[in-house]
Amino acid sequence: MQRPNNAGNTSVLLPEPSLGRLPWYLSYVSGLRRQGVSHVSTTQMGAALNLDASKIAKDLSLLDLRGKTRIGYEVPLLEEALQRVLGFQESHNAVMIGVGSLGSSLIGDRGLGHYGLNIVAGFDVRSEVIGTEIFGVPIYDINNLVKERARLEAEIGVLAVPSEVAQSTASLLVASGIRAIWNFTPTRILVPEDVVITNTSIYSHLALMYNRLSNLVSD
Amino acid sequence: MQRPNNAGNTSVLLPEPSLGRLPWYLSYVSGLRRQGVSHVSTTQMGAALNLDASKIAKDLSLLDLRGKTRIGYEVPLLEEALQRVLGFQESHNAVMIGVGSLGSSLIGDRGLGHYGLNIVAGFDVRSEVIGTEIFGVPIYDINNLVKERARLEAEIGVLAVPSEVAQSTASLLVASGIRAIWNFTPTRILVPEDVVITNTSIYSHLALMYNRLSNLVSD
Repeated sequence: MQRPNNAGNTSVLLPEPSLGRLPWYLSYVSGLRRQGVSHVSTTQMGAALNLDASKIAKDLSLLDLRGKTRIGYEVPLLEEALQRVLGFQESHNAVMIGVGSLGSSLIGDRGLGHYGLNIVAGFDVRSEVIGTEIFGVPIYDINNLVKERARLEAEIGVLAVPSEVAQSTASLLVASGIRAIWNFTPTRILVPEDVVITNTSIYSHLALMYNRLSNLVSD
Repeated sequence: MQRPNNAGNTSVLLPEPSLGRLPWYLSYVSGLRRQGVSHVSTTQMGAALNLDASKIAKDLSLLDLRGKTRIGYEVPLLEEALQRVLGFQESHNAVMIGVGSLGSSLIGDRGLGHYGLNIVAGFDVRSEVIGTEIFGVPIYDINNLVKERARLEAEIGVLAVPSEVAQSTASLLVASGIRAIWNFTPTRILVPEDVVITNTSIYSHLALMYNRLSNLVSD
């Protein structure tokens, strides 16, 4: 049985719309902490983020944390609780599949490490990159994926291969025992039910932006 | 009047759920074209992509193109129509704001150019990068943004600055006359109604993936 990408898990721990807003709160609260602000209320947050305060309060009720009615949340505790619930405080071992232009760029993005993604190895088919390092990360032959993935204890595979091999490579990742695929290709990937797939199709976002731009023009 | 990011434009040319699926069709159809396949039906596409054929037919009806009832769409014509409606065939001039780890990675990603985004310059505050080139793209002082943006005729600003300056830099972009902001920061950005904002918070997607993974574990 296969499921399409982004099919809703029926029993996620946190509702995904809330989860989509929590990084905004984290970004805002981290800014307050850097400025030495001690407390923040949902009313203040709502005003700063242009969101309804009651929606923010509901989202924050998902955290294991209590706000005081009058003075709001303690900023450092709220920041830490947000990082924890978002999974950014743990380290998740990942392998990068395809180290062409996009894949090697992602290896070089230190932000991913800051948010808990630890890319421990890259894999490719091209002999000229196999055996090299990219930003200090060793690059292996994709044919050794099954063996190396187990050794590296990587549970996440980041997919940045050409579209025409996206599905076959995803299937190889599944066979290697990976538990989640972060798909950067514009291809719709099918995986078994027990493998997580998350799509970040940056090129689809470009199409959204172009469409919105055309719309402004035509108004 | 400001509007929050990703607020729905009420009169977009194409419905965004359809627009989100079109890149999947493009990826699939491009593969068929490379294999020399001449025609494809929505039934075939539905089977390959695990989508309802009638939904695909409805999406494709948005294109200026007709399928023949028996033999389906001509593959090269369908590919071209998809690229056209997605805006990938035109070139859109863009400036990269912030050329740290993520910004310079994005400049190096040739995929963006392939999908119509032409990054003509980068801007930063750091004296050590101002006046240099990154992957052949000149890097200017952010203080010259207003002047350079007009000269470069860039309508899109790609925002890859640290969170704490995301809003102030976005406001500077708006003041410089930019028409769309592609926001890669995890910060919620507020812009005037007549400026397009599109969010690609790759770190938020990480949180989604971690949450789905935890859920699998706990089952």
